[in-house]
Order: sequence, then structure tokens, then C-alpha cells
Amino acid sequence: MNVAIVGASGYGGLQLVNLLRRNKNYKITFLGGNKSCGNKWNKMFPFIDVENDLIIEKYSTQKILETSDLALLSLPNGLSSKITPELINCGIKVIDLSADYRYKSLNKWKEIYNKEAEIYNRNDYELCLESVYGIPEIYPNEIKNGRIIACPGCYPTSALIPLIPFLKQGIIESEDIIIDSKSGLSGGGRNPKEHLLYSEAGEGISAYGILNHRHTSEIEQILSSVSGMDVQLMFTPHLIPVVRGMFSTIYGRLNDPRLTPDDCKILLDNFYRDYPNIKVLPVGTYPSSKWAKNTNDVYISVNVDNRSGKIILLSTIDNLLKGQAGQAVQNLNLLSGYKINDGLSLTSFYP
Amino acid sequence: MNVAIVGASGYGGLQLVNLLRRNKNYKITFLGGNKSCGNKWNKMFPFIDVENDLIIEKYSTQKILETSDLALLSLPNGLSSKITPELINCGIKVIDLSADYRYKSLNKWKEIYNKEAEIYNRNDYELCLESVYGIPEIYPNEIKNGRIIACPGCYPTSALIPLIPFLKQGIIESEDIIIDSKSGLSGGGRNPKEHLLYSEAGEGISAYGILNHRHTSEIEQILSSVSGMDVQLMFTPHLIPVVRGMFSTIYGRLNDPRLTPDDCKILLDNFYRDYPNIKVLPVGTYPSSKWAKNTNDVYISVNVDNRSGKIILLSTIDNLLKGQAGQAVQNLNLLSGYKINDGLSLTSFYP
Amino acid sequence: MNVAIVGASGYGGLQLVNLLRRNKNYKITFLGGNKSCGNKWNKMFPFIDVENDLIIEKYSTQKILETSDLALLSLPNGLSSKITPELINCGIKVIDLSADYRYKSLNKWKEIYNKEAEIYNRNDYELCLESVYGIPEIYPNEIKNGRIIACPGCYPTSALIPLIPFLKQGIIESEDIIIDSKSGLSGGGRNPKEHLLYSEAGEGISAYGILNHRHTSEIEQILSSVSGMDVQLMFTPHLIPVVRGMFSTIYGRLNDPRLTPDDCKILLDNFYRDYPNIKVLPVGTYPSSKWAKNTNDVYISVNVDNRSGKIILLSTIDNLLKGQAGQAVQNLNLLSGYKINDGLSLTSFYP
Amino acid sequence: MNVAIVGASGYGGLQLVNLLRRNKNYKITFLGGNKSCGNKWNKMFPFIDVENDLIIEKYSTQKILETSDLALLSLPNGLSSKITPELINCGIKVIDLSADYRYKSLNKWKEIYNKEAEIYNRNDYELCLESVYGIPEIYPNEIKNGRIIACPGCYPTSALIPLIPFLKQGIIESEDIIIDSKSGLSGGGRNPKEHLLYSEAGEGISAYGILNHRHTSEIEQILSSVSGMDVQLMFTPHLIPVVRGMFSTIYGRLNDPRLTPDDCKILLDNFYRDYPNIKVLPVGTYPSSKWAKNTNDVYISVNVDNRSGKIILLSTIDNLLKGQAGQAVQNLNLLSGYKINDGLSLTSFYP
Repeated sequence: MNVAIVGASGYGGLQLVNLLRRNKNYKITFLGGNKSCGNKWNKMFPFIDVENDLIIEKYSTQKILETSDLALLSLPNGLSSKITPELINCGIKVIDLSADYRYKSLNKWKEIYNKEAEIYNRNDYELCLESVYGIPEIYPNEIKNGRIIACPGCYPTSALIPLIPFLKQGIIESEDIIIDSKSGLSGGGRNPKEHLLYSEAGEGISAYGILNHRHTSEIEQILSSVSGMDVQLMFTPHLIPVVRGMFSTIYGRLNDPRLTPDDCKILLDNFYRDYPNIKVLPVGTYPSSKWAKNTNDVYISVNVDNRSGKIILLSTIDNLLKGQAGQAVQNLNLLSGYKINDGLSLTSFYP
Repeated sequence: MNVAIVGASGYGGLQLVNLLRRNKNYKITFLGGNKSCGNKWNKMFPFIDVENDLIIEKYSTQKILETSDLALLSLPNGLSSKITPELINCGIKVIDLSADYRYKSLNKWKEIYNKEAEIYNRNDYELCLESVYGIPEIYPNEIKNGRIIACPGCYPTSALIPLIPFLKQGIIESEDIIIDSKSGLSGGGRNPKEHLLYSEAGEGISAYGILNHRHTSEIEQILSSVSGMDVQLMFTPHLIPVVRGMFSTIYGRLNDPRLTPDDCKILLDNFYRDYPNIKVLPVGTYPSSKWAKNTNDVYISVNVDNRSGKIILLSTIDNLLKGQAGQAVQNLNLLSGYKINDGLSLTSFYP
Repeated sequence: MNVAIVGASGYGGLQLVNLLRRNKNYKITFLGGNKSCGNKWNKMFPFIDVENDLIIEKYSTQKILETSDLALLSLPNGLSSKITPELINCGIKVIDLSADYRYKSLNKWKEIYNKEAEIYNRNDYELCLESVYGIPEIYPNEIKNGRIIACPGCYPTSALIPLIPFLKQGIIESEDIIIDSKSGLSGGGRNPKEHLLYSEAGEGISAYGILNHRHTSEIEQILSSVSGMDVQLMFTPHLIPVVRGMFSTIYGRLNDPRLTPDDCKILLDNFYRDYPNIKVLPVGTYPSSKWAKNTNDVYISVNVDNRSGKIILLSTIDNLLKGQAGQAVQNLNLLSGYKINDGLSLTSFYP
Repeated sequence: MNVAIVGASGYGGLQLVNLLRRNKNYKITFLGGNKSCGNKWNKMFPFIDVENDLIIEKYSTQKILETSDLALLSLPNGLSSKITPELINCGIKVIDLSADYRYKSLNKWKEIYNKEAEIYNRNDYELCLESVYGIPEIYPNEIKNGRIIACPGCYPTSALIPLIPFLKQGIIESEDIIIDSKSGLSGGGRNPKEHLLYSEAGEGISAYGILNHRHTSEIEQILSSVSGMDVQLMFTPHLIPVVRGMFSTIYGRLNDPRLTPDDCKILLDNFYRDYPNIKVLPVGTYPSSKWAKNTNDVYISVNVDNRSGKIILLSTIDNLLKGQAGQAVQNLNLLSGYKINDGLSLTSFYP
């Protein structure tokens, strides 16, 4: 498969290049970039050398048609919607890492991403409807047959994977779910912003997007869909001084408070038995985000507070891999007929 | 006031020396230490020089009686209970930074601190009953008249200060409180342990003490006492790669879901109006733990989710100051007849 | 003294506000800023509240004349030269934190700061000649009588203070000096740039400005001046993942290789005996930059390699205090007739 | 090849397991550990699972003979010398990560590692003489035919690889070499020590082992050997708050000061042309230790100060891989008849 990567010099793009450059199933045939445009890749990134040392180019649908079978887009929200319809029409399947195709309803997107909606005049309602939400362990068949895959946000990935098994089976109530997430700084991207500076973020912990972070609605959409109920939850993201890493602490109310921690663990085991990258830990073993760093794995730990009948779920991922580019490669594998985790047997190199 | 500091070379002790060495109200007259025993303080800590350059000594009640009016104990749990009764009997008031006198009921302490209870054979039931829980903004009069002050843990301080006003007035339900806390590594102390190593803790986020951290019962005891209800809550501590800093994200259910964020802010303003070190932020302003670092201040922000009728409280402190030694000095001020925040006008030196 | 701070919301400005807001000798009467212009200071910086809660204003010489006796300028290189001459002409003394007045020769400045020289058309040759280089422990009398004080760069400060005593007395050869410096990220300022991002700088060490960093010539100018020789040296700056802190490891050749480490220590002791903020450590005690953090102190350690007859000097400072704003306040004190270290008795709050 | 790893749960051991567990050339057949002894590996390290889930065992020569063809020892200095002679006598080749066999002369070892020499009574003079110093790019043939390979220290690796080409060809003078190195904390190992705590090491830079670090003599031994001169140098190690990463800034005097930076770069290119893991950067491109992190690569940059005729070399490695376990696997490959970099095509996953 010949693959185009658009937005290659951002953090998502860098991970994609890293994951695909030595992957025997794929060949990178187009690298699209903006600031670095016109330069040879290996000169810009001597520590991520690609064999065919491509030149970083301006985006061009024509060039992608000529060189590639498939496109991975790692672009700012809104921008992807400007090029995806044309690519799809030309027969190029798209794996999109932005939020542009995560909502079935374009109107919902316009409500949540209202700033981007003002800039980008979108009418691709049908493409939104057609788009597949790209959690490969949940929607493998849809992804295999999709033309446009919308990769989830990092926070939604870390929250949905532990929650879906319980919501799908009606084990956790649809009310009272709280997701308290902690993210490393690379989640904010490579574009320089004051709050992402080492001096600002180092030696500090802070919360942001209280009650109104955009990923709230993304998580609710999927949980409502899998549970058949109208799920409304509280989601609080925090910035933590690590480069890579995401940790979500999730609280919910059990419908049956007599469920034991082991019952809950077994349910997770069964649900994800075909997915060895989803690692359900023994009850009482709690992960560090370092375990998942530089891998595409998800570590989940579950426990039950028998005083209150509440469940607590801990989940941790690498926000740039399972939370972004690694999941995109899983989707790429499914789309291309390979095994879901091909080329994703990565090593965390603790510590 | 002549003051003895016992356990001076741990992190709590170092802060106490720092806060008192240039404080005109106090003179440090005894420095007790273990590993550093026999050395001159200024040789061990050239960056925290004290004017009268004391020798670090082994603990001795006699020596404290001869030199000091009051003792600050920064010792491992259990150890404090071995020396406090004698000091009190000799007329030396004690400000204790350990957990030994935080419970009114010694039996409760023995249940929660069962490992320490096995080592230290305690019978000081009455001293436990007499001991004052040292949040100076909540119990100022009891502290002024106390003989033994038990300084709260860092997590309880960060959770109780925002919660007490609401629990006291019955505004938050006694059920469904969740405290999701994030702590810097210095909270684990200066004694070398594997999980506190830079290599283990750096670039990682992890949770620990799930459902059974000892501070849960400490927080519940005080909230139950101020509310007159039996408060049971969930408390999840996390370790975050910062040296100093603690951030608690607290969720609760409002009895009256029509309360606005501003109503809640005003309630906090009024409750703490006499305490300028408790800084209630405008609705929509969210703090970083960096703001509180190196100060004795508490930053609180409150908001209300009108979809669910839940309140969210953010609070942040320096775990070694307001969470430990700074609060001890507030208590020392009250005990000694000084103003509560004398000598605590500190500067965070952002960033 | 009524003091204007121009460039108040950068890191240098923030430190100046922090150092002066509770300093009884001074009153902040003007806060000049750019991005934050028009806002109340306490709203922008709730964690650095000033009593008279000024509004951040656009720069105006007129407004400074009306309100202030003296101006502290914390502006990008070049910009300061646009306003300093007018202020001086109006009788407002200036303490400048930029590089604009650090060279006696404006032509030298134009050579070294050639990019800025293209933007800012400067002709203030005489003001450059008149300007005093602001290391207060070296040039106290010149500073007391100056009208324009050019505060040194952070690297030069960390290198000059240990080197000057030896160069002045001809103890270290003028050739073969190597300064290997390590700086925290706050030295790069608050303006967002890619290489200052947490994700880029965290978990990494790098060197920059190899052989051509601008501070090389600044250090050489002063060492040549104090030694009467033409000093040429190698200076290598590195970026290290700390927010605040600077550490310089300096190598030189002794003229007399029989000098002992204690000889060298005593020389430093004597040279700086009147300056308790310059802390010469016992031979064999080596500092951490953490000791100096949040203080205006300099820690120096010296040793001699008797195999090679070379001297090694370690020096560490807080790059934003002794390396920038703290040194500016020392200069302000001297200019204003106060004691050099008034209001600078700061606490590092280790760890 | 069946491989025993002794000292498996330290940082060196963890890397070895990580590098070998999915390496088709090797099978891990013995895991020796101390604290973790008796536990299943996958329970202790769920994030580094090995397929055959071995039990961690006490060291036993017999058990190694029964299970393994070769032993990798990652033990504290001195301890290795207690078991290596017996293993060698039994026909088990040894790759040792400690300092025990790095000196040709056991007497030199006893002088430098005098504390260990007091504890461990060594007489294996001949084994020291026989031992091969394990820089595989320098001594590939000796390693292929060796029985005992002494892997270099991390500092020596980072310094020798850039220096050897110049010393071997007499381009840099044997005097006046200065190596200023910066190391991440994992270099200090996993055994808890105060100075390795996050709270102590975070937000700080410090130097240690001034003039007397043990690696000085190790570097000098090899440089003297390759140059045929008596090389004496200054080596200053620093601790920097990163988990993994080592950066050495090296200064030397050129015999011919007219050499250009490009001359020097070409010399390095030629010297290491067969070793693609040694990456000589274009003149003017300077590496970050992040580039090398999680890889077995060495990045080198060279420049020349034409004012002083001095050379500056920058080199950076991952201290736990090329500085320790990765280099050990290169040696293992050579010993076992595989290609030097087999299984070492690692990805840094920047940032």
C-alpha cells in the first residue's frame, strides 16, 4: 500500500512516519507539510530518517492521486473537511485524525466546533453520516469496509475503551459518570502556545475546559449509541508535566452494587479477549502511564467501592499512539486487509 | 518564643526551619534529627543557613525542656506518640505534623494505622480526645487554647478547605462526593523509596491507594463532624511528576441544583472572608498548582454543571506548606498569640 | 521611590513585580505591557497581586514622567534603545535588562546584534559609552552614580562572578578558558517558540549557539577589561529541562599550578567578603542549581586538578533573579541609596 | 542462543529483557534477581511480558549451565567478579555490564574501585587481561572471539566514540582534553538513594565526582591505548533531570589548527562508515539527547573554533541502551555470529 501523510511534521504526523517508515506493509509515498515545505524530510528530521528521503510538499490532491492509495490526514480541525470530500470522490480512502468526521451529525459538529465552523463552510452532511468512528476494537467490521475513518480524540479513546463494555451491557448507569483525565503536554500539539511552554507547564498541574471541553460530547455520542440511552457525563481534563501519557480515572454507579471487582475484570477480559493490546490488569494492580508510553497498548484496572456501589476504572494510554497515530495505523491495517496490530508491537523501554 | 523542631532534616522539617529562621517572632533553639545527628546544621544545609548554627541532636525531652517553649514534631507516623505525652506533661505544647493525633478516637487510629499500631503500643486515648485538628481557618479558637495540635494531612487540607463551607451549610449532599487528587512527589518524603525515584516517577502518572488510602477516613471524620451527617466518599490520590504541588478536583451533588456558580463562589468568599490566604477565584478562572507553589495560599475555583446539578471544586496548595509546614506555622502563630498569617507572606516566583 | 516597570508581563517583568510589590522602599507606579495592555494586573495575574491594582498600559514616556522616578525596562533587545534616550533626557534613570547598553561600543553591539541593528536604527553612541555594566558586586560605585545601568545577561553573570577575581589578579591565564553552561528554559522568555515547548524540551538535553552565542563577546568584553588582557574564550550554552536554574562549569589554566584549592577558595572569600549573597562553598562541596532557585544568591565551588594545573569553577544562580531581575533590584537599590541586598532576603524552599 | 540475564530487575536488566524478549535470535532462559526472587516475571513487570513467563530466580551457576549458552550480567560492581570466573571455566561466555573487567590491570581496578576491592577479594588477574573492552564499533574482531566482554560505562561510551577517531590518528593533542558530560537519572540505577529521588533531582542541575569520577581512568586507559600516548584529561559529570539521556560536550586542541569542521566531519564519517547507528551530523546541526532516546544510536556533531584552534565535539546517547544494555546486545550479536545491529532497529518516538 502506498500511503500519503498530510500534516507530517506535527506530532501526529511524526508518529505516523515513525510507525510506517519501517513497516513492510506500507510505503510512504507523499509527505505533506506546511512550515517545512520544500525541504527534504531527512534533513528536517535526521532522527526519523525515511529510506526514500521524500521532499515535504504542499498539499495537492493531484499529487496524492498519482502517488498514493490512501491518505492519512493529521491536520487542524476544520482543515481536513476541505480536502477529504475530494479525496473520497477520487477513490482515495481517508483516515482522518482530526475531529471533522467524528460526529454523525454535521450540525452537532458545527455546534461544538463553532469557531472552526465559522471559518470552514461545510456541507458534507452525508460524508459525516457515512464516516466510521475509528476505535478498531469496537467497530472492526465497519472500519474494514469504510471509506472515511474518523480517529477518536485521545481523551475519548482513554475513556471509551474501559467504559463501553459496561455501558453496552447496562452494568453502569447512564447517569453519574465522571471522567477525570490527566494528559501530557504533547496532546496540545507542536504549534507554539504560551500554556504549552516548558516554563509554564513544568512543575505544575492544572485543569481546563471545565464542563465544556469538546470531547465531552464526543464521548457522550458513542456511549449513548452503544448503550441505547442518553448518556450525560462530567469530563474534566488536566494538564500534567509529562511529554507523552494519558491517564483517566473514571467513576460510575453500578446497577447491581453486588458486583465484585473480579466480576468486572472478567467482563473486560471477555470483551477484549481478541485484542491483546488491551491489557486488563489483575484486581489491585494499578498502572502508570509510563507502562503504556511509546506503545499502542491500553492498560485498564477496575475496582468496586462496596460502601457506595460505585465502580472505579483506571485507564492509561500513550496519547500520541493509541490516543492518535497508533490507533490510526490500526485502522489503516483493517482498511488494508492486514491484521489489526501488525507493525504495532512496540516497546515502552521503561523507565 | 523558643521553638524545638524534631525531625528537622526531612522535608517537613526543612520547611519549618526555612519558615522560622528569619521570623522575628520565633527563635529555633533545638534541631532534632537522626541521620544528620551530630553535624552542624549549616554544614549539612548550606543553602538554609540559620544564624545560631545549631548542632543537629538526638531527640531528648530534657534538652527540649531546657531550651524551648514549644515543640514542632515532623516525625514518621507512630513515633510522635512516643514523645508527645511526656512533652505535654512537662508543659511543652506540641504541634504534631504526623497522623498520630488526627483522630479523636485512638481505636480508629489503630484501625487505620494498623501497621504503626503494631509497632507502637499506644494508650493515650485522652490525649487523642483532647487534641485539636489543626486547620486554623476552621478551628482558630480551639487551636489558640490547645496543648496538642494535630496538623492535617496534605490531601485532607486540599479537600476540606473547599468542602467544609458547603457541608457545614448542608448545600452538598453527604453522599456521592468524589475527591480526585494529584500530588507532587515531595509528599512521599525524603526517605529513599523506589517509587519516589526520578526514573520511576518522571514522565509518568499513576494512581495509588485506590479505595483504601488512609486519608479517606481523616477527611470523612471532619466532614461528618462539621455536617452532622455520616459522610462517606471516594478519594483517589495520584502521583504526578512535580516536586511540590497538590491539586484536588472534587465532585459533589447539590441539594438545590438551581444554585449558580456565583452563588457558590459568594458562599466561599463569605466563609473565608477573614482569611486572605484562601483565594476564591472568579467563576471561570482555574488555577495551576504553580500559583500556590512556595506559598501558604489555597486557590479555589467552583463551578456547577446545570445538566446534572453537580458541583465541581478545584483546589490547589503547596503540599509542603499549606499541606504541611506552613499550616503548622499558622497553628504555631495562633498558639503563641500572633496573627495567623504572620511570617507567611511568601512569594511563588512564577514560573 | 516610584518605579515604572516596562515589559511587566514577561518573565523578567513578573519577577520585578514580585520583588517590588511588597518592598517598603519602592512603589510600583506604572506597569507597561503589550499583549495584556488595558487589563487590570490582578485579573491577569491573580497569583501576584499588587496592592494598588494598576492597569497594564501601553508604553508612554509622558505617563512615566508623571508617575515615576525611575524605570526598569524588561524588553526585547533593540526595543529598549528606542525609549531609553528620551527617558534619560527627561531625567528618568533607567535600569535596562536587555543587551542594548551592555557594550561600551555601539558598533560592537551592531556587529553582535546585527538582526536587531537592522530593525532599530541606533545612534546613541554616547549613551552606550556612559552606560554602567550592572554587576553590583563589581561596579558598586559606578552604579550608584549612573544614569543608565545595563544589567548583564544570565550566562555572563554566572560566568563573570567566579572568573573576575582570578582574572583581575592574573591567576588564570587569558587563554584556554572554557565556559560550559546549562540553563533552564525560562531563560528563553515567555514568548511561545517551538524549541521552548514542554514537549520539545522535556526529557532532553541539547546545546545551541556553539562558538557563536552572543554572550561570548559580552563575557570577553568584561574579562578583558578587568584583566587588561585580550581574553578570548569558548562558551557553550545548553538547554536543560528545568524551569529556573543556571549552572556554569568553567575550566581555566592557572598561571601557578601549585595553587591549592584552598588558596583559590580563600581568594574568592576575600574578594566577595562584603557580599553575603555570593556564597563560596567549602572545597569539596558542590552545589545544585536548586540551592539558588528562587533566591538572588550565587553559589561557587572551586577545585584544582593538580595533574594538569587547571582550575575548575562551578557556579549556579537562578537565571531569572541573580541572572536577571534580582540583579536589577540590586542595581536599583544602589541607585536609590539603599543597601545592595535590601528586600532580597529570599528563600529557596528546597526541594 | 539461550541467554541468561542476571540482575534482571535493575534498569540494565529491564532493558536487556526488553531487547531480547522479541528478538528471534535469542531465547531468554534464565532470569536472575534478588528482591523480586521467586515471583513470575510477568506479574512483577506486566508491561514487559515475556512469552515463556519465567520465574525470577536466585543466582545459580548450575541452573545457568543447564539452561543457557551465554550469560549477561547486570550486577553491582564487584559482585560480577564473584561469578564470572566460574561461568567462564564452565564454558559459558560472559557479557558483563559492570566495571569489573574493564581494566586490563586488576591492580588498577583495585585502586579505582577500592571500596569494592575491600569487600570482594579478587585474584582474577588473567581474566582481566583476557577481557575485551566492549565497544563493538572499535573492537569488533576481539569481541567476536572473546570469552568475557566488559561493556563500557555510559560516560566512557559517549566520550570515546567521538574521540577515538581523532586520537587514533593523532589529530587531537593528548593534553587539554575536557569532557563535560550531562546524564539522566536512570544512570544512577534503580536502588533507592536520596540524591536520585524526584524531589531532590527534579528542577535541578548539579555536578559530582569532580576530578575523581571513576570513569576518568576508564576513558584515559582506552584513549592512551588507541593513541599510544599517555592521555590525561578532565572529566566532569553532571546530573540533569531527565530519565534517559546522556550528552557529552568535549573540548580538545587540534594539532593542526587549520583543520576545518568539514575535515573533521569527514574523518568521523569515514571512521564509522560501516556503522549506521553512529550518526555524524552535518556541520552546524546540533543534536538533542531526545533524538537518541530509546535507540541504540550515537549522534555526533563536530565544530572547530578557528580563533583558538580547538575542536568541540557533541555526542549524545541513551545511557541505558548504547550506554549500557544496547551495547551489550551488540556485543552479544558479535559473539553469537549475528550482525552487530540485529534487533536494534529501534524508534525514538520523538517527542
